[in-house]
Amino acid sequence: MYSSAQNNISDLLKLAKKFNCFYLSGLHEGICKPFIVAGYQVGLIRPDVLKYLIRFPEVFRITGKYVELNPAFRDYKERTVKVADVLQSLRKENEICALKGWRDECFGVTTPLYPENLLEMDRSAMCLFGIRNYGVSVTGYVNHPTKGLCIWLQQRSFTKQTWPGKWDCFVSGGLAVGFGVLETTIKEAAEEASVQKDLAKKLVSAGCVSFYFESERGLFPNTEYVYDLELPLDFMPQNADGEVESFELLTAEECVKRALTPQFKTTSAPVLLDFLIRKGYISPENEPHYRHLVELLHVPLQSIYDWPFTAAAATNGDGDEFHHVN
Amino acid sequence: MYSSAQNNISDLLKLAKKFNCFYLSGLHEGICKPFIVAGYQVGLIRPDVLKYLIRFPEVFRITGKYVELNPAFRDYKERTVKVADVLQSLRKENEICALKGWRDECFGVTTPLYPENLLEMDRSAMCLFGIRNYGVSVTGYVNHPTKGLCIWLQQRSFTKQTWPGKWDCFVSGGLAVGFGVLETTIKEAAEEASVQKDLAKKLVSAGCVSFYFESERGLFPNTEYVYDLELPLDFMPQNADGEVESFELLTAEECVKRALTPQFKTTSAPVLLDFLIRKGYISPENEPHYRHLVELLHVPLQSIYDWPFTAAAATNGDGDEFHHVN
Repeated sequence: MYSSAQNNISDLLKLAKKFNCFYLSGLHEGICKPFIVAGYQVGLIRPDVLKYLIRFPEVFRITGKYVELNPAFRDYKERTVKVADVLQSLRKENEICALKGWRDECFGVTTPLYPENLLEMDRSAMCLFGIRNYGVSVTGYVNHPTKGLCIWLQQRSFTKQTWPGKWDCFVSGGLAVGFGVLETTIKEAAEEASVQKDLAKKLVSAGCVSFYFESERGLFPNTEYVYDLELPLDFMPQNADGEVESFELLTAEECVKRALTPQFKTTSAPVLLDFLIRKGYISPENEPHYRHLVELLHVPLQSIYDWPFTAAAATNGDGDEFHHVN
Repeated sequence: MYSSAQNNISDLLKLAKKFNCFYLSGLHEGICKPFIVAGYQVGLIRPDVLKYLIRFPEVFRITGKYVELNPAFRDYKERTVKVADVLQSLRKENEICALKGWRDECFGVTTPLYPENLLEMDRSAMCLFGIRNYGVSVTGYVNHPTKGLCIWLQQRSFTKQTWPGKWDCFVSGGLAVGFGVLETTIKEAAEEASVQKDLAKKLVSAGCVSFYFESERGLFPNTEYVYDLELPLDFMPQNADGEVESFELLTAEECVKRALTPQFKTTSAPVLLDFLIRKGYISPENEPHYRHLVELLHVPLQSIYDWPFTAAAATNGDGDEFHHVN
């Protein structure tokens, strides 16, 4: 059983601070500019990205305080096309690391203040604009008669663009435009681990985790819808899409140890920690930073982008002319 | 089964905004002053409380920017005694609503930046200083063969100082100084619902919820450690401490409806919603504001009190002379 004696209490909090490195520092340093679309802040842009966008003044209006997608673009379609054109130009130059992982899969750009997507853009480019990213993750687990709670982990394929060869959740995937949350979960479970229809009916939605990570590739304000799937003792996951190197069944204790190594995908640790907290394996009795840890699994991404309000509060500045969705 | 067709989607989000009324508005209006103890911000003080504290300059140092507990007080004990003296004086005047509910039960005043309590004060006074408040809550549930997921609710005694007669979680209680989290949970389950030792072994810790409520009594930045307890079908809770009016077993659907009425204790709704989300009853498929809802069940109370940093960022001000715990 997990206890602070076996695993230093601060190890899990350290891990939570690692996958929230941007939330806990970069966010407050103020070197990124709010990215405004149709009057809503939908992201943040780092200086290293700005130097590319500045070459496209007909698409991106850059002021001292923010970057705005040209408000003359009339609708979803026009915004999407204009941004895609810029991204394709930049992609051809082959200088931006994130765009080397081009996916041909579009994600929606959203604000909690407006019910529809404002535009869509290739998944690989979301991190350049600090746009909120949504995905699904399944924890496949077994209640083993002798070993107790055991969890299936997958090792990502060594050919993947991101986190190649790292240990990851049982199944996960991004929420592409036009796909539902449960629909995506079922699809990914079938593709990644050959979870059949009947077994997929046992998927239980169990909340979501939100964190704000940063890497050299960009900014990752990430929310994962989490699902639990209790698997039969004799279930053997088999990959069907070539994106998985292998699967391994670990005890909860081994999982925590694995998550603390560099071989584990940092941005998948929140899903594992949330699962172990919900199942009572990590508890207030064995983790002194429990309440802080739970908080760092749910950072307020839905309210973090509130330009011009934060800026106005700090400067008594104005925030006129905003909010003009068509 | 719950769906947005039966219950308007915005009803649950509205409820989450209600129990976070201070987080979502008052917090940012800047009319409350940070409360500093030993160099750490531990709370916020409203103007209606300030007018009483101003009469005790030897205990509370009030500046234009903050209220500081006299830094000359040497340690935990001295801070505790000096504050208790003020509170007893005010209590005798019988003017402050919150102090009419004096409990003779002390809660710790904490900061996540320091491992020990800085002082303790009567539970009833915590809300006058906006001090983070910790409690435990148990959801007692039954997997009913025909009705599905059912949940035991308690109706609070009509003689209780706070929320008399309102519907509440199965079992809950505050974390008093000197008691552990699980220990408090077991004690409260025995007192409030006659949960015996053997049954209490089935308590599963499942995370915590955090929210920031305000009422006429004061400010409530509240974190509840949540526990689940699956009860036998024939279990009948019996109150042993006179604090409960009655118990009732409701289906999950009936629970949601009850939580949306004024007869439900607003600040207990987070525990119920978190439970229904973790069990998959409220899901991304039936609640369009799902991710926002999950976020409002976990607002960042551990990092919300960061004076002088927020203030310094807004004003380029200073924050010297702070942090002097003995």
